[in-house]
This record gives sequence, structure tokens and C-alpha cells, in this order.
Amino acid sequence: MSSRSAFDPSGSDPSSFDPGPLIRKHRTADATLTVTAQGAPLAGQEVVVAQRRHKFLFGCIGGDFIPLANGDAPAPDQPAAAGSQEVADLWLDVFNFATLPFYWGWFEPERGRPDTERTLAAARWFADRGCVVKGHPLVWHTETAGWLMDLPNAEIAKAQVDRIRREVTEFAGVIDMWDVINEVVIMPIFDKYDNGITRICREMGRIPMVRMVFDAAREANPQATLLLNDFDMSAAYECLIEGLLEAGVEIGVLGLQSHMHQGYWGEEKTLATIDRFARYGLPIHFTETTIVSGHIMPEEIVDLNDYQIPEWPTTPEGEARQADEVVRHYKTLLSHPSVEAMTYWGLSDGGWLGAPGGFVRVDGTPKPAYEALRSLVKDEWWLPPTTMVTDDDGRVRFTGFLGEYEVSAGGRTAVFTLDEPGGATVEAAI
Amino acid sequence: MSSRSAFDPSGSDPSSFDPGPLIRKHRTADATLTVTAQGAPLAGQEVVVAQRRHKFLFGCIGGDFIPLANGDAPAPDQPAAAGSQEVADLWLDVFNFATLPFYWGWFEPERGRPDTERTLAAARWFADRGCVVKGHPLVWHTETAGWLMDLPNAEIAKAQVDRIRREVTEFAGVIDMWDVINEVVIMPIFDKYDNGITRICREMGRIPMVRMVFDAAREANPQATLLLNDFDMSAAYECLIEGLLEAGVEIGVLGLQSHMHQGYWGEEKTLATIDRFARYGLPIHFTETTIVSGHIMPEEIVDLNDYQIPEWPTTPEGEARQADEVVRHYKTLLSHPSVEAMTYWGLSDGGWLGAPGGFVRVDGTPKPAYEALRSLVKDEWWLPPTTMVTDDDGRVRFTGFLGEYEVSAGGRTAVFTLDEPGGATVEAAI
Repeated sequence: MSSRSAFDPSGSDPSSFDPGPLIRKHRTADATLTVTAQGAPLAGQEVVVAQRRHKFLFGCIGGDFIPLANGDAPAPDQPAAAGSQEVADLWLDVFNFATLPFYWGWFEPERGRPDTERTLAAARWFADRGCVVKGHPLVWHTETAGWLMDLPNAEIAKAQVDRIRREVTEFAGVIDMWDVINEVVIMPIFDKYDNGITRICREMGRIPMVRMVFDAAREANPQATLLLNDFDMSAAYECLIEGLLEAGVEIGVLGLQSHMHQGYWGEEKTLATIDRFARYGLPIHFTETTIVSGHIMPEEIVDLNDYQIPEWPTTPEGEARQADEVVRHYKTLLSHPSVEAMTYWGLSDGGWLGAPGGFVRVDGTPKPAYEALRSLVKDEWWLPPTTMVTDDDGRVRFTGFLGEYEVSAGGRTAVFTLDEPGGATVEAAI
Repeated sequence: MSSRSAFDPSGSDPSSFDPGPLIRKHRTADATLTVTAQGAPLAGQEVVVAQRRHKFLFGCIGGDFIPLANGDAPAPDQPAAAGSQEVADLWLDVFNFATLPFYWGWFEPERGRPDTERTLAAARWFADRGCVVKGHPLVWHTETAGWLMDLPNAEIAKAQVDRIRREVTEFAGVIDMWDVINEVVIMPIFDKYDNGITRICREMGRIPMVRMVFDAAREANPQATLLLNDFDMSAAYECLIEGLLEAGVEIGVLGLQSHMHQGYWGEEKTLATIDRFARYGLPIHFTETTIVSGHIMPEEIVDLNDYQIPEWPTTPEGEARQADEVVRHYKTLLSHPSVEAMTYWGLSDGGWLGAPGGFVRVDGTPKPAYEALRSLVKDEWWLPPTTMVTDDDGRVRFTGFLGEYEVSAGGRTAVFTLDEPGGATVEAAI
């Protein structure tokens, strides 16, 4: 598949891939900004232009901060530092996109007593800090509500639809983006344990199931961005997507998981994967990415959940490798125009599988990967406050990453955005 | 998935699976046959009842006998014995269902000069000997016509549709069963080499491609049985099928390949696989089965075509194992009511990959697997000419495998069929 990627089709050294020109092409605008004051161009004046926000969604899961956002004591099952204000500051300095947990078995362990208020407080906490917030997931066979097992299938389906309507409605305006359904490829044939969602997916079939839950979410919030999400990057996911699109199910975004506990994918596999899913013309989100800073999980493990070890330490060599791979991975994703978001699966170590997959150690100190990512997001790909002088027509020219900017002069500030790559003519009235 | 198969859900010893009762349940009828002569029951008479044909399609590829059927010299690229009358006799003694090759690149290497006559003569040769004949395949990215590469995509699609119409029309009445399209799961992302079919499948998408070619085949022969066929037994094939069914594409039969060069699947995997595809309510054909009588291909080989060795001998131990596995495999398939056909992929050794996958050695002598299969098909599952005495109402009772029978008395013979399992009341007028 390399012939369809940015690589030389002869399949030579992946290190020859240079994402730089593609990132500039797809992620930056050459802006001509006209600054006006009281309707007239502000000519020959010093102005300061500064980026405020990225358009690209640099995401991370945010569940660690639910206690902090609620003024509660840290959760007993997480490292003390992980939910601290200090780590929250690290989080907010790099990320602009939070994924919050809606696993049904956690969210509503007892039927009729959903954990709405605490989650809503956390969602508002992120939104107040300028973040886009996504809920994950509304439907999944894993971590689903145990009490579904007591219901006949028709009632499970009704409970699922009701649950979607409730959450999507109650969080609307704060959470307008949802991983609606997770891992549909395996859902009806999941055989590790019985659960209500596999039961109904097997009975209904995948496409009617997806249609049902997407319809419920869209009806509850017509403005919401609705994702299909899967870990299965094989032709199975392609076939599922093609079937859904043929059946007229309106998918907003394709979510691709990329937990790399068994090793970094590399540029070639990553681009080939994106290319295969980009051909459906839908935006792509990398929804769940992990790159470990310790030893790599053995490749013979098929279900990552089967790898349970007492301790999985982060190591200096692992941290150096992780930093390198993180930079390569983010650059690869930004080089492809279909990718609109990337969510890293946990800022702190000690999360899923106990893997050293975070950018921050259990003691709260940042790893090299954190610094490397911050330097991309807030330095290499960022316009710091920059003094420019307007020409006779009040114009300044600069190249910047897509996102929100401000321009200041004489103690006044105006905001503008760079929305599309390429040449951009924008105006800001101070 | 064992919990959905005939196994004890506790997943115990596969050898505990006893297919016998299921085979009797799904494959035999308890017949009450009334024999009449000139409108009156033939009471208290000796009659001879004999099976003539199985309803179950015991199939094998038949391309080896195209030269024989045409009165030509054997093909230079096949073992001399493989296409001989002696091996043909072995074939016809066990099988009632022939698959003939329609690989486009072989069938019409030069555009406009299809190999219709020789193939039609071979199809008639099998049909005249009581066999159902299937064509394989009408659409496939492998072995497709090289000259497609010179055409723009719209013309490739038109040539493909025209080709389907031509073959399905010209062979109708002799071949009324087709593997319409082969290996669609991988078709649009096949990346070993460029070819016309991958090009159009990638452009159209899998579902429109399948719809186009099934529509063409059905239009050319509305009575034909039309198969979708794949080697990919993963959830990908399920997703493809679900998408096609949701889109209203009328698939007649699901074809499952089972080339077992890397080892016999075993009863549990086989039944679990059937169960996953049986839930669509369509008949299932095992379209391509191979079980080798030599060493097993290493499991790390992903594409079987990548395993090319100078010699792959059949061995005495391998032949004993093959015979055992062949019996287990056929019994497993007949134990499941959804399976209507099983095609073995080559009677003689020396076929695909040079594997010792045949039931007959290159010198034309049958292996133990041949004798074992023959003893199932023509002995254990067969009613030989059997003398019975009719009761006062002209009736005899017997249990037989579904298929065609004859009853003879006083030098006269009548034919009847047992079509459905369970109790059957049939009448034969001699």
C-alpha cells in the first residue's frame, strides 16, 4: 500500500519521509491581515500578533481531573500526582481537546443513578479552559452496564437508546462531540464474556445497531459531531464503513484507535492506514493513541488486555525512544489532510494495563515526550506574540498554523481565525 | 465462540464432538415408500431400492479433465495421470459437483478470443455424467485479464459486465451456478501488483462492485445460483456480507474457502466459522478445501502464495493424517444444516503451490484419503441396491441420505427423491 502513501512507491527507507512540506501545505495559512481601527486601516503601526489556539485538536483523555474539577479528593485508584493541579497545568499547556469517560458500567452502575453531575462539572471545567470536550463512548460491549443482562433484548435496545438520548441531551452545549459506538467490528462476535450489548448487536446485525444509536444521538443533538470508533484497522473496518455508508447511516467522523503497546507503527503503516480510511471522504480522528516509554509488549499477544504484569516500568532508553516516536507520529498525522484530531490515551503513567504510556511519570514529572510534544504544539507549530509593522494599507503578512489568533495595538486587541490552509485574507478591527 | 457451536460451552475436548446424530438429523430421511403398478399398490412383493445420487454436493475442481473431455492430449503442465480416464473414473465415483475454471486471464488472454468451446465441452462432459457444474470465478483481481490495464476504469467495468453476461448466457443450462466474485474483502486494497479489477473496485467501493456484477449475472440467467466467495473468514467477511444484505444485493450462497495448507482447522474452529456465517440465513458452500498429506506449511506464512518450495512430497504419515482429517472435516460439514456443498480443491497432487493436497498421487494411485472419502460417500452415507418386501399397502420403510433413488421390481424401475430430512412419504409408480 505504500504506493498510495507519501512514500516513494519503490518502498525505500521510511526515514526518507519528510512531513515538513506537507504539514506546511495542509496546516498553515499565508495570512494577509488588515488591521483597522474605527473603520480605517491602521497604517505604519507596530502590532503584536499572537496565536491563541490550534484548529487541529490536540487531545488527551481527561478523566484524571474529574476529582480536581469537582473539588474532590483524588481517586484512590490513581497515582496521587496524576490528578493534581500541577499535572493539570501540564495537560492544559499542550492539549485543547479532552475526552471524558462515559463507560456505561461506570457511569450508571445502578440503573437510574447516572454519574451526570460530576462528569458535567468536569466537562465544564475543560470547556471553561478553552477545550473541545468529547464523550467516550455511548455504546460499547466492554464496561457496559451489568444490569442489562437482566433484560430481554428489546429492552436492552430501548435502554441503550434512552441512555444515548439522556447523555447527549444533558451534556449538549458542553459536550457536542461523541464516540457514539465503539468497536462494532468485534461487537456481535465478542466471546470473552456475555454482555447485553453483544447480545443485541448479534441479534440486530451491525448496521441496524449503528443506525439505531447514531439516529438517537443525532436526534438528541443535531449539531453534535458523531464518531464511529474502532481498534480494528483491517479490511473489516473498511467493510463495516462501506456497508454503513451504503445504508445511508450518517457517520460524522471515523475514529481510528492506535494503541501501540506492541511498538510504534512507523510512518509507512500509519500513512497507509490513513489512506485506506481517508478514501471515504470523512474526517479522521486518531482517537486513542498510546506509545510506551518502557519495554514493548510481546507481539504474540493478540488482545492487549491479556498482558498483565506486576510492574511495567518507564526507562531512560524507553523515554528517549518514546519522545522520538511521539514526534514522528504527530508529524505524520499532521502531514495528512484528512486527520483533524489526535487523542493521546493518558497523560500520566499508571493508566490502562499499568503501561508506561504517559508523557508524565507517576511522580508527576514530565518525560522527554512531554517536552517534545509541547515544543511542537507551542513552539514549532505556534506563533508566539510577534511584533510586526503594518504597511500603508494597514497590512501585515505572516505564516501561521490554522487556529485562533489575536492582534493587539495601542492597548486594544482583536481576534481572528485562520481556518483554511493556503492564502488567507483576514481583517481585524481593533 | 464455542458456546454457539455444537460443543459443550465449557469448551472441553473437541474429540468429544459426535457428528453422527446431527448428520442423521440433517441429512437423512425416514422414508415410507409406496410402490404402485398400474395405479394399484404393489403389495407383498420384493423390490430393490438403491440410491442414485446425493443431494449434498460433493464437489471437486474439474479442470484437469478439460483435455480428456475434448479428446485432446493432456496439458503439458499437469502430471500425466491427473487428466487420465482412470483418474476421471476415480473422480466420478465420489463427486457429483464439478467446479470449472473461468479465470479471465486464462479464459480470454487475448480480448475477443474466449476459450468458450473447450470449456463448454468439459462442462457438458460433467453434466452428462450427472454432475452439477459451477463456473469459478467471473470476477477476481488475481488471474484477471492483463489487457484490462490498457483501459480507463469505466471501460474496465463495462468489459467486466459484458464478460459476465457473455459467459453466463452461453453456458446457461449446462452451468447454472457461478462463483460470481471472488475475494472482495481484499480486492480494493490488494497491493501485490496493479490490475484492472482492483482499480475499479477501489474506485467504486466493494458494495457497488458486487451489486454490479451480481446484477449482470442474474439478468443473464435468472435461474442461476450465484455465490459470493472469500478466503477471509474474519469479521471482515461478516461486515461485507452485512453491508451487501443491507444494501439489498441478492446473494444466493455464501462461499467459504478453507485451504488448510497450514493445518486442519479442527471441528471447533470449523463449526464456529460456519455458525458465524450461518446466521445470515443463506446456504453455505465450502468452496475450496485443501488438506495436505505432507508437511504443514509454516504458520508464519501469511499469503499462501509466498510459500514456494522445489518439492513438497506426500508422505505415509501425512497420508494417514490427511485421511483422518478429511473424514473429520466432511463429517463436521454434514453435521451443520447450513452447509449444502463442499468442493475439494484438486483430486490429484501437483496442483496449486505444488502441494500434496490431492486424494490421488502424481502417479495416479489413490491415497488413503480417497478411500476414506469414498467409503463415506458411497458406503456409510449411501444406500446400495437393497432388497425389501412391500407390505399389504405396497409400502417399504427405510432410512436414507437425501438424494435421488430408484426402486425396481419385475424388471421395471421408477425414480424418486428424498428432499428434506425427517419423515418422508413418497410414492413411485413402476
